[in-house]
Amino acid sequence: AVSTFKLKVSWFPSKKIVLLADFKVAGVLPFSFYVQFQSLDYDNIENQLFLEEERRMSYLGFRCLEISRWVVCGWIGFLTGLIACFIDIAVEELAGFKYQVVKENIEKFTEVGGLSISLLLWAVLNAAIVMVGAIIVAYFEPIAAGSGIPQIKCYLNGIKIPRVVRLKTLVVKVCGVICSVVGGLAVGKEGPMIHSGAVVAAGVSQGRSTSLKKDFKIFEYFRRDTEKRDFVSAGAAAGVSAAFGAPVGGVLFSLEEGASFWNQMLTWRIFFASMISTFTLNFFLSIYHKNTGDLSSPGLINFGRFEGDSVAYNLYEIPLFILMGAIGGLLGALFNILNYWLTIFRIRYVHRPCLQVMEAMLVAAVTATVSFTMIYFSNDCQPLGPEHAEEYPLQLFCADGEYNSMATAFFNTPERSVRSLFHNQAGTYNPLTLGLFTLTYFFLACWTYGLAVSAGVFIPSLLIGAAWGRLFGILLAYITPNSVCLWADPGKYALIGAAAQLGGIVRMTLSLTVIMVEATGNVTYGFPIMLVLMTAKIVGDYIVEGLYDIHIKLQSVPFLHWEAPATSHWLTAREVMSSPVTCLNRIEKVGTIVDTLSNTSTKHNGFPVVVQVLGNEEPAKLCGLILRSQLIVLLKHKVFVELARSRLTHRKLQLKDFRDAYPRFPPIQSIHVSQDERECMMDLTEFMNPTPYTVPQETSLPRVFKLFRALGLRHLVVVDDENRVVGLVTRKDLARYHLGKHGLEELQLAQT
Amino acid sequence: AVSTFKLKVSWFPSKKIVLLADFKVAGVLPFSFYVQFQSLDYDNIENQLFLEEERRMSYLGFRCLEISRWVVCGWIGFLTGLIACFIDIAVEELAGFKYQVVKENIEKFTEVGGLSISLLLWAVLNAAIVMVGAIIVAYFEPIAAGSGIPQIKCYLNGIKIPRVVRLKTLVVKVCGVICSVVGGLAVGKEGPMIHSGAVVAAGVSQGRSTSLKKDFKIFEYFRRDTEKRDFVSAGAAAGVSAAFGAPVGGVLFSLEEGASFWNQMLTWRIFFASMISTFTLNFFLSIYHKNTGDLSSPGLINFGRFEGDSVAYNLYEIPLFILMGAIGGLLGALFNILNYWLTIFRIRYVHRPCLQVMEAMLVAAVTATVSFTMIYFSNDCQPLGPEHAEEYPLQLFCADGEYNSMATAFFNTPERSVRSLFHNQAGTYNPLTLGLFTLTYFFLACWTYGLAVSAGVFIPSLLIGAAWGRLFGILLAYITPNSVCLWADPGKYALIGAAAQLGGIVRMTLSLTVIMVEATGNVTYGFPIMLVLMTAKIVGDYIVEGLYDIHIKLQSVPFLHWEAPATSHWLTAREVMSSPVTCLNRIEKVGTIVDTLSNTSTKHNGFPVVVQVLGNEEPAKLCGLILRSQLIVLLKHKVFVELARSRLTHRKLQLKDFRDAYPRFPPIQSIHVSQDERECMMDLTEFMNPTPYTVPQETSLPRVFKLFRALGLRHLVVVDDENRVVGLVTRKDLARYHLGKHGLEELQLAQT
Repeated sequence: AVSTFKLKVSWFPSKKIVLLADFKVAGVLPFSFYVQFQSLDYDNIENQLFLEEERRMSYLGFRCLEISRWVVCGWIGFLTGLIACFIDIAVEELAGFKYQVVKENIEKFTEVGGLSISLLLWAVLNAAIVMVGAIIVAYFEPIAAGSGIPQIKCYLNGIKIPRVVRLKTLVVKVCGVICSVVGGLAVGKEGPMIHSGAVVAAGVSQGRSTSLKKDFKIFEYFRRDTEKRDFVSAGAAAGVSAAFGAPVGGVLFSLEEGASFWNQMLTWRIFFASMISTFTLNFFLSIYHKNTGDLSSPGLINFGRFEGDSVAYNLYEIPLFILMGAIGGLLGALFNILNYWLTIFRIRYVHRPCLQVMEAMLVAAVTATVSFTMIYFSNDCQPLGPEHAEEYPLQLFCADGEYNSMATAFFNTPERSVRSLFHNQAGTYNPLTLGLFTLTYFFLACWTYGLAVSAGVFIPSLLIGAAWGRLFGILLAYITPNSVCLWADPGKYALIGAAAQLGGIVRMTLSLTVIMVEATGNVTYGFPIMLVLMTAKIVGDYIVEGLYDIHIKLQSVPFLHWEAPATSHWLTAREVMSSPVTCLNRIEKVGTIVDTLSNTSTKHNGFPVVVQVLGNEEPAKLCGLILRSQLIVLLKHKVFVELARSRLTHRKLQLKDFRDAYPRFPPIQSIHVSQDERECMMDLTEFMNPTPYTVPQETSLPRVFKLFRALGLRHLVVVDDENRVVGLVTRKDLARYHLGKHGLEELQLAQT
Repeated sequence: AVSTFKLKVSWFPSKKIVLLADFKVAGVLPFSFYVQFQSLDYDNIENQLFLEEERRMSYLGFRCLEISRWVVCGWIGFLTGLIACFIDIAVEELAGFKYQVVKENIEKFTEVGGLSISLLLWAVLNAAIVMVGAIIVAYFEPIAAGSGIPQIKCYLNGIKIPRVVRLKTLVVKVCGVICSVVGGLAVGKEGPMIHSGAVVAAGVSQGRSTSLKKDFKIFEYFRRDTEKRDFVSAGAAAGVSAAFGAPVGGVLFSLEEGASFWNQMLTWRIFFASMISTFTLNFFLSIYHKNTGDLSSPGLINFGRFEGDSVAYNLYEIPLFILMGAIGGLLGALFNILNYWLTIFRIRYVHRPCLQVMEAMLVAAVTATVSFTMIYFSNDCQPLGPEHAEEYPLQLFCADGEYNSMATAFFNTPERSVRSLFHNQAGTYNPLTLGLFTLTYFFLACWTYGLAVSAGVFIPSLLIGAAWGRLFGILLAYITPNSVCLWADPGKYALIGAAAQLGGIVRMTLSLTVIMVEATGNVTYGFPIMLVLMTAKIVGDYIVEGLYDIHIKLQSVPFLHWEAPATSHWLTAREVMSSPVTCLNRIEKVGTIVDTLSNTSTKHNGFPVVVQVLGNEEPAKLCGLILRSQLIVLLKHKVFVELARSRLTHRKLQLKDFRDAYPRFPPIQSIHVSQDERECMMDLTEFMNPTPYTVPQETSLPRVFKLFRALGLRHLVVVDDENRVVGLVTRKDLARYHLGKHGLEELQLAQT
């Protein structure tokens, strides 16, 4: 059930990161780039047993099922909110402790001299904390590295990356992200929260944990890919909702990244999960912030509420916003290209866990050093007014009653820095501080993303954008001194800049607009934010793909986009399909089946079942489709025609047997079939899908593509006009075609 | 291309408004209940000519197409915003004028006595204005009656109701809604705005107006159902966006009501149209309100911005909100049942235009009389403080410096009344006023919906809910006098009540939550509003369906829901399909085609094209599918094999010919075919869809249903395992099955 792609990576990013098969030493690739994927199947699960169960089920049964779906979504929301709350509080407390220690140390040495000791303390502290985070990721669960969003995008697209939704991944992810943020890296905790939500969903919906060997015997109906995927999309939405306090944004994120066929009830459940998640988070945070039960406290709005007059904007500011969008698109593309090169470098040279840990520690130490240097050489002193709510104001060389402004940006968790940039009054930062900060943080964030630590890119992007956006606002007010009244608030420009930068890097529009609106608690900015995100996307897309897409491409999975490439109408199923196909007879010899499954050259996942017309050399007529996993379960339980006759010894294979094996079906090598058994026959009629989707050979590629996308297919049998099998279209066959600069291109995806 | 359903309506609404064929005098049904529908086709349009065009098209061509789609969406947004702005301002000005006249009259007669003259003036004014609105609707375009949302829901579902997206409908709709609102009916202008957006979209995207006989020769590629439907969904979203200032809500409305296959680019375009629409509206309104260019003015938030402390809510209020949701659900169901009975009454007895106009006038006069009586007998006088921004404060019998509080609710446009209920300070209304107002307005609104005027039900629902919600809040504060501080603000409860009532009537959840959030400019209320809407929906659905669904069912169109009925797994395509099917040969005699098309008993829309195996009595093999409309165009242009040989006289039929005929294909009766021509042959190969979707006979109903829903099908050919046609599944075959109280039921939809 496993296909593996090797990839050749090129140093030149472009719309076509062409993946070639001649990368010599696949073994040297670090795990996360050497992906074994499995497709999720939707349609093909409908074998006879499932159908029979559904036919037996009463109206009440379906009603119960529907209610359990809601219950599961409620639990997903609740647990995701709880995890987000745990991460939030842990980061807050630990980071607070760390900054307190460093601050006291700095204050001690500011007077007596010898600040290099403070620097050392800071750097060592950071490196040590990051080391812990990097070790658990690099050694225990490499799939937990990064933000997890590319993996979730793949999952929702229909590609199952192994171990991505396991309990172990969740634990490593949560601990890892706490270490990364507390360790002072330029990272956010939002991406990992989304991934966490997805893992929670995959776990709760199955009613058991394979890792903990605990089966609650509930929700057994949901043990199939279709249902699981729906719940994972709810989990991802709940994650977004908890990360940004944006329930609607969460729903839209799930839809924008994952949905294909839109179902109203599913969307409502997703929305329910998101709402519960925000609610849970807010409730527990309100206890933590000591105003229990007050769910509308502005402190619960992620980036602080923009309110009243500060949000006013006027028609003539629209061009300025668009300009900022373009800048964001350019900077985002630059970020992506740099990160792409860095990733290639890492694939080639930094692939051993120890090296990865060392790199992470190096980055942590450098981040501390750079921050310290910037703070040290900055002489931007600001009066410490009562209205400043800085958590850790550093006085350093400033006069009494003043604080170092550079330190509010660097000496803080990134999320708090964003808040300060959005809401601190005009004049709190001077332009030089902001310029230097943007520059250094840009490179730090770029270096950090892709390290073997669990960390997201949302907050660093926002921070970079907020910094240059605020700078933009200040310069604007500087250029036109007489119209200060309207442009007085640089916080507004910080917000727009943040949106532009984030949009330029990740290239989302609809969901990101809503997330920003919800995270700032104000709907008035919807229009400018949308404009900015659109501009950033258009400008950025012209140069290079979005960050997540780059990373997905580097994993070389058969990701299906929304539509077939535009100029692919002249291609037909005949040209696209794999042919000849390995078919099985309706009553097939066990030996043949074992050989087919063991054959490494054709690692197919599904096999058409055919009826041979006797004494005829023509291709056989299609009568069904059976999956590799189903065959394996059949072999494991030795469902052979010969044995079935002695019914007393063998009970009938039930749906439960398939469900118990799901989702970790054993490999064929672990199934032992004796030489005698090889001569037995297996009757597949009872277990195959009797009505697989088929298309004639002349069907155009866009039509095939639409079938795949809308129905979530994984195999499509191509038949001739006599209903005989002539080929099989799989996800990989479609993912090969790609729209390049010179029209349609065929990628050379190679299978090992 | 037209199928007609007759219906029998029963006086007992239930989940199954069973439609039977024995309603005797179909002719007496008013037009809007006697619907001729056409299905939109998505898949089947792919005939050879279209395919050839797409194959010829270059990458640049597709690029241009994509850009034109964005341009069209921009225009849709702009024009919809403009229309909404026109309606807003017209209503504002005309209603202002009317209320000014009546107010002066009342003030004059309050002192000297003889208020009955004022009453007469008011009633006659209202009736006269409403008469105009009712006449244009009843006599010129009956389809423009009501809110238009049921029609748009049908359209997006894939059912084309004739004349629903025509220019004439738009004009009548806009004028009609202005008359209804100004005429003082208990109606809103939101539903008509949504309909207007859809009409604008259908018009702009075609690049021509058939009514005005003007063809701009642009956007010719979009002259097909698939594309047009996508644009109409953008138009509906733009309409919602303009009506409530809720762009995200608009997108979600379109998706919740219409989408089946979710496409990312389409959603972005819809969002773009929505944003442009809000922007246009806000820009022009900012000019009208004399602060040009200030797009963030709080006055542009539809129901006034909830800000600061007034929005605080606490955990222990959640159960109260849920209780309010349940009340809303009950009241909503009552509203729907009453309205259902009224509609049945209207179908039976009020079907002539003159009667409809008279009924509308009667309602207008009664509304004025009731309002006047309520105001007259109310002695709820409130001090006229500077903070009250009542437009038309009526002093009546109050002391100087005071005004009649009942009048703020009745003597105002409904939208303004909602605003007052949301935002006026505590103590502005006394409980008795609110109670009486709720009661009377409930029945007035219920009576009004379904009149032959163009009018929506959103705002009246909100108003009823806001009134009892505020009452609820006041009583709450009254019961617990010592905890006044938190429950001090009855506006909060007005908002929750409004949401509950509206949810109970229309039963939307996701989009309505977002619309309410955007229309009040505050995201904090998202969670309680969602809870309330969910509760209202669950409680309401238990009793009766939503208002729009009731009206859709009464129109007896084959509306497809999201999923197949739960217990339909035991049904297969064999049981569902229509059989035998009228098939055509690949080269068919003209006479046969004409006869097939003229045959009134089988008004099929699509015909499988088959190849007969010579000397064989078996069903023939499928080789394509051709549409009625395509056949008609072929007949009209006399594309006969015999004539084609003399090429000089006949040019080849081109795609353009199909497009020019779209969407108003002539009926078969208007095509004249001579007796000689009847003997000619037609070669359908070039024009049919060569790869129609097919399923085997054993496919289960849910799978068939999913294919229809996900791919937007209209015909699905059922074949046996030799690829021979055995049946055809159409939309009607699927819409027949319905989940009733006793399991699956088969509706008796009858064709005339």
